[in-house]
Amino acid sequence: MAQKPSIPKGTRDFNPQDVAKRNYIFSTIKQQFELFGFQPIETPSFENSSTLMGKYGEEGDRLIFKILNSGDYLKKVDENLYASKDASKLTSKISEKALRYDLTVPFARFVVQHQNDIDFPFKRYQIQPVWRADRPQKGRFREFYQCDADVVGSDSLWQEVEFVQLYDAVFTKLGLSGVTIKINNRKILSGIAEVIGAKDKLIDFTVALDKLDKIGEENVKAEMLEKGIPQSGIDKLQPLFSLSGDFGSQVTELKTILKASEEGTLGIEELEFINTGIEALGLNTAQLQLDVTLARGLNYYTGAIFEVAAPEGVAMGSIGGGGRYDDLTGIFGLKDMSGVGISFGLDRIALVLEELNLYPETVSDSVKVLFINFGEQEALASMKAIKELRANGVRAELFPDKKNTKKQFNYANKRNIPFVVLLGDSELQSNTYTLKHMSSGEQSQVDLNGLISAVQ
Amino acid sequence: MAQKPSIPKGTRDFNPQDVAKRNYIFSTIKQQFELFGFQPIETPSFENSSTLMGKYGEEGDRLIFKILNSGDYLKKVDENLYASKDASKLTSKISEKALRYDLTVPFARFVVQHQNDIDFPFKRYQIQPVWRADRPQKGRFREFYQCDADVVGSDSLWQEVEFVQLYDAVFTKLGLSGVTIKINNRKILSGIAEVIGAKDKLIDFTVALDKLDKIGEENVKAEMLEKGIPQSGIDKLQPLFSLSGDFGSQVTELKTILKASEEGTLGIEELEFINTGIEALGLNTAQLQLDVTLARGLNYYTGAIFEVAAPEGVAMGSIGGGGRYDDLTGIFGLKDMSGVGISFGLDRIALVLEELNLYPETVSDSVKVLFINFGEQEALASMKAIKELRANGVRAELFPDKKNTKKQFNYANKRNIPFVVLLGDSELQSNTYTLKHMSSGEQSQVDLNGLISAVQ
Repeated sequence: MAQKPSIPKGTRDFNPQDVAKRNYIFSTIKQQFELFGFQPIETPSFENSSTLMGKYGEEGDRLIFKILNSGDYLKKVDENLYASKDASKLTSKISEKALRYDLTVPFARFVVQHQNDIDFPFKRYQIQPVWRADRPQKGRFREFYQCDADVVGSDSLWQEVEFVQLYDAVFTKLGLSGVTIKINNRKILSGIAEVIGAKDKLIDFTVALDKLDKIGEENVKAEMLEKGIPQSGIDKLQPLFSLSGDFGSQVTELKTILKASEEGTLGIEELEFINTGIEALGLNTAQLQLDVTLARGLNYYTGAIFEVAAPEGVAMGSIGGGGRYDDLTGIFGLKDMSGVGISFGLDRIALVLEELNLYPETVSDSVKVLFINFGEQEALASMKAIKELRANGVRAELFPDKKNTKKQFNYANKRNIPFVVLLGDSELQSNTYTLKHMSSGEQSQVDLNGLISAVQ
Repeated sequence: MAQKPSIPKGTRDFNPQDVAKRNYIFSTIKQQFELFGFQPIETPSFENSSTLMGKYGEEGDRLIFKILNSGDYLKKVDENLYASKDASKLTSKISEKALRYDLTVPFARFVVQHQNDIDFPFKRYQIQPVWRADRPQKGRFREFYQCDADVVGSDSLWQEVEFVQLYDAVFTKLGLSGVTIKINNRKILSGIAEVIGAKDKLIDFTVALDKLDKIGEENVKAEMLEKGIPQSGIDKLQPLFSLSGDFGSQVTELKTILKASEEGTLGIEELEFINTGIEALGLNTAQLQLDVTLARGLNYYTGAIFEVAAPEGVAMGSIGGGGRYDDLTGIFGLKDMSGVGISFGLDRIALVLEELNLYPETVSDSVKVLFINFGEQEALASMKAIKELRANGVRAELFPDKKNTKKQFNYANKRNIPFVVLLGDSELQSNTYTLKHMSSGEQSQVDLNGLISAVQ
């Protein structure tokens, strides 16, 4: 019986125009990744569950898609466990594989597994889909691409400088001028927490501080107080709320606040190194901005923290982010492997390019020349010309059926095919082609060479 | 606790060289697809189980990877059903989604679902991974890419001509000369079955005939006899076993055998149309060969059947295949939508290119220039030059840490980086660069422009 076809919620079909636009973004990013010396790797879509589970917190574990074992997967399940009908206990018995939840953990697994074949520092990029059983909503999908570049095996701060430049290069190439690359440092956040007497409340502190943009200064302070951060400490934060001026003067103010903290001071030195490098090298269209409220995946990052905001006036969350982590591969037994990486938020970048109308006009061009089908003999002659066009790099095709000409022209119109060739009886005899330029309506009589050069 | 990392059996990690080689094949195929007027679509990695189940036979259903429902997936399972502990019954209750098994069924689903937005004939290509819970073995994986091009909405035989040309174009571009494109027609097989009085035994007949290469004429005949095909019918087959000469003379012999069958005669006419077209248009490096034993997915195909064999001397199964199907979209309720398509066997093509050493030498080139790191000032000057190189399309990077020079050179060697730049104290003062060509060992002193042009 016929089914009404649909796809699972949170997933998408991409038609040719969608794919063309997405490929445009991917290839722009890939080109810059490669200019910067990154090389692609790919990992399997599913990993052993033990590789993924426990790496993303409880919430993450829940959101990982699990794959049912093949065959009679109940056979070996213990009777008592089965009788309890407890899904949380049953899962690990009937499912040993799970879909990739991000690219970071598989990358760590890859590095550890192949460490003897890798020449460190290892600069890899990876553009692959990931899957999350999240509640779907606008801009949030259950299947989406991640697009990451990381370096592992070097703690040089030049990498951070490189990543700021890389963000600038990609967004410049995409025509997206005016993005803000926000930077912070985990050590600065730790230092501030230390200085205000909230070292043991680092998470509460940064979670509250992270909300400054959304809920304002007074509410942030109230939340901190509620979480048990002393009023005296909160008072010391005051200069943070009024950091102003350029990068340099903000850093100077921060230095004053953090002079009592060794870790905080180290964080500032790192920040200064990166900023000095960027000032010397220059950015094309992006700007680098200090944002001491930036926390992101704090538990994860140990040094620099990055986040990219779309140009002012575009209502969109972050379109990229990343940072330095000192122990990514530790979970798989390889210690002391510092890494730093960034990612690009493909779906949001696509929305921004759409909103600002930044896709090149030619992005979803498909076929350039359609030959009208007048019947068998004409079609064969058309196919010969089409073969020549293709050999010259021109996308060309024959309308496959001898339908009435109007229908064939309609097809060309709908598909935005710019040129139509009529090769009928008279053209066959004169060995010429009637070439119609669809947008202008102009027609001309050309020979094969004329045809090739006219459409190229 | 640290885990020993591994990946699920039948899956693969791809390192940068692997990815580069695979991308070389993909991009060669994509380029030809697009020259031939095909456009890319992408469908979700998982579909509703109802979309996939029952479409690939019982064996296929077993090999489909099922995804466990999220949350408390046991809650709504009927007590009695649960108590039976019957995996085959439980599956549909706890799993509503499944990983794509091929690209064909999702494509049919796509066409039906989006039929109002599609301009027919619709020429699409799709290059995406599929998953099968097959027993892994040499060359057979649980995750692998399929690479398909199809046209739906036209029964013109010019499509078949196009696909033969497309195979020829792709394999020629890949440098793989001498492939054989075998062609047959479902109608010819039906016609033969009719003529020998085995119309109701078409499957048994073709399964036996398909084995001719492997088990030889006598065994094929024995199998047919065993399956209940009468000896008198088998005797009529004799000319089939000794078809010889070129395409044209084989067709002539076939015509004699099939003259009593309307369907068989129609199959021959189709074959002749395609062959005449190909003879008029010519092939670059492939040859078209009639193979009346070719059956492939017979239940599926209704007209032409294709299969591509690697060049003689390369022990490899088929590296591509396809055919015409008249009712692909019928399973989703859209009737009378004839289609024809082909696929490329990526993994096998990769093995053949490897065996014949056909990858371009430059295929896995990564970074072209490495700057040695002599310390902070030198590194900053290096980064400025690197920025210029990248702006000129040259992949360049700085060794991130100031390690001893020998180690840095080792890194360049291991990564096959062809050029190394030394920018030390004296170079800084003279505003020059010492450029070392790694394979020849030659060194030269150049300025920035000299550097750019030397490495480009």
